[in-house]
Amino acid sequence: MEPQFTPIENIGEFELIDRVSAILGESADPDLILGIGDDAAVFRADDDHSFVLSTDMLVEGVHFDFSYVPLSHLGAKAISSNVSDVAAMNALPSYATISLGIPPRVSVEMVEEFYRGIRQACDMYEMTIVGGDVSRARQFTISVAIVGRVETRRLSFRRGAQPGDLICVTGDAGSAFAGLKVLLEQQKSMKEQGDAFVPDIDDYRTVINRQLMPAARVDVIKGWHEADFRPNAMIDTSDGLASEVNHLCRNSQLGALVDLAEVPVLTETNSVAEKYEAALAEFVLYGGEDYELMFAINPNDLDKLNPSATHVIGTFTAQSEGVRLRFPNSQVVPLEAKGFKHF
Amino acid sequence: MEPQFTPIENIGEFELIDRVSAILGESADPDLILGIGDDAAVFRADDDHSFVLSTDMLVEGVHFDFSYVPLSHLGAKAISSNVSDVAAMNALPSYATISLGIPPRVSVEMVEEFYRGIRQACDMYEMTIVGGDVSRARQFTISVAIVGRVETRRLSFRRGAQPGDLICVTGDAGSAFAGLKVLLEQQKSMKEQGDAFVPDIDDYRTVINRQLMPAARVDVIKGWHEADFRPNAMIDTSDGLASEVNHLCRNSQLGALVDLAEVPVLTETNSVAEKYEAALAEFVLYGGEDYELMFAINPNDLDKLNPSATHVIGTFTAQSEGVRLRFPNSQVVPLEAKGFKHF
Repeated sequence: MEPQFTPIENIGEFELIDRVSAILGESADPDLILGIGDDAAVFRADDDHSFVLSTDMLVEGVHFDFSYVPLSHLGAKAISSNVSDVAAMNALPSYATISLGIPPRVSVEMVEEFYRGIRQACDMYEMTIVGGDVSRARQFTISVAIVGRVETRRLSFRRGAQPGDLICVTGDAGSAFAGLKVLLEQQKSMKEQGDAFVPDIDDYRTVINRQLMPAARVDVIKGWHEADFRPNAMIDTSDGLASEVNHLCRNSQLGALVDLAEVPVLTETNSVAEKYEAALAEFVLYGGEDYELMFAINPNDLDKLNPSATHVIGTFTAQSEGVRLRFPNSQVVPLEAKGFKHF
Repeated sequence: MEPQFTPIENIGEFELIDRVSAILGESADPDLILGIGDDAAVFRADDDHSFVLSTDMLVEGVHFDFSYVPLSHLGAKAISSNVSDVAAMNALPSYATISLGIPPRVSVEMVEEFYRGIRQACDMYEMTIVGGDVSRARQFTISVAIVGRVETRRLSFRRGAQPGDLICVTGDAGSAFAGLKVLLEQQKSMKEQGDAFVPDIDDYRTVINRQLMPAARVDVIKGWHEADFRPNAMIDTSDGLASEVNHLCRNSQLGALVDLAEVPVLTETNSVAEKYEAALAEFVLYGGEDYELMFAINPNDLDKLNPSATHVIGTFTAQSEGVRLRFPNSQVVPLEAKGFKHF
């Protein structure tokens, strides 16, 4: 009998993780506060402090393409995307390791350029690269593991949101995807026009920068620690708003109503959608890679936050009401969790 | 002007790590006890305890080949090789994350088989998988990051060996490489002989098992903690004896004299070398993947150790004497650090 062969794309990333988690089983470790399933795992350091641990893999041709990503930016982004997972736990980044798969067409000089971006990001986030590994590979492959630190009482998880809590986001949504759209369209034009090609990116520098050099919101987390504020639940918006709202709802066993009109969007993001005749809502809901924070907060706590860094985009409801989106014309539809597909 | 292009193989893995370390600079973090350069990094948990952090990347076609490695064995080996780095610090493994790059020809069922091997290894080492990431990739790519725990006073580093200390190893040397040799030769015969091929592995089951399912020496570390023994310096033998002796010497600023006749070798390893007309010394000195421990100990402390698990293979000397190997015929030659090449 032939062994069964189910392609991974048939079940998708999240179902695969569920199956793997079932094989791995439950941990009996009393110092492990949280295992698989959140932005990072959490384990106890001492009576009052914990460490968080997370990892991300970026693969050439899947997550990035050398034709539009400078290597130093790629290094910085690999760090920022991992720092964002630490921030999503309300923790601050401390240490990271980096494993690299390197194809023969990548030189020593290119690896050095990559690490200059890493260094710059580490300086910005006040963290240290403490180890790594390198190997030959056919695709440039980056695997970062990151350790962050937090007072245990400050921890935020995906679970913990309460019915009636406001859904808030930092920053804006869709700009990283708008930047990617511009870069890909420019690349297409360059191929079509050859030597006649003149880059047209001056009007889109902000969104391109958001794609190439996103910053994790460590600044927001530091402000919250000073103000002694802790969200009831939190996630970072790496996979797009729609996917993240669904994660918070699933983990908190709640429903949600998101007001599309309240989601902050840059003028440039809007211009990109118009220029390429794309639906702005697609950028905003499913774009991903913004590395902003989405969190749950009791309405009474709203005055503790910096109003310029916080945008209320909806409300958590009973689970029975489902996860819904209200369009500016008041039409309400189910908000599904589609996001960036890795398979 | 064209940018400079130096192929990585021109400078090699260790020189690349030196260049990257220079770019990353020194850390000012007071809780970071040890950064890049040892088997694992070390950071403080509380006044008396530390965590160690290490990472390894395994790439299909570079570190393993599906034609001879069952997926569950590959999963277990990915864990063991990382646990070995933790053991080399005299620490015990606690948590790990796993990032996987998965090509389309790998099914859900194959990934599940891989994770059954992971689970088995985790149960054996009493540790927990706490997170991970998955992505499409052209080669099956495994990146593990591992966190271990240790009382700070027990830590062993690559530095710290003293002149006159004995060089000891646990277990034997060269068996994992002997196993690989058998598997590769069998694969070759299978290709040449087609349907007429009859596997000839019964006499080599031990060394094949050492290649496919090596065990990290957590048992030794636990025994040492009970006996309150701490080596003056330590490393695991993942790259082969020659490379590891040189690492200990470089980090401890010492020389060494290794007696080849004292290095423990399995009879099977010897048979494999004879059968394929290979030099046994090559297996023993440069084979790698044994995941045993090599450590430095004051001669007066030798009676603290289990004699059946400890083999004295040489002595640390003044740095000026260099790193040397004595053959059974008493000839002494320089022992160079060549080992498994990743580029």
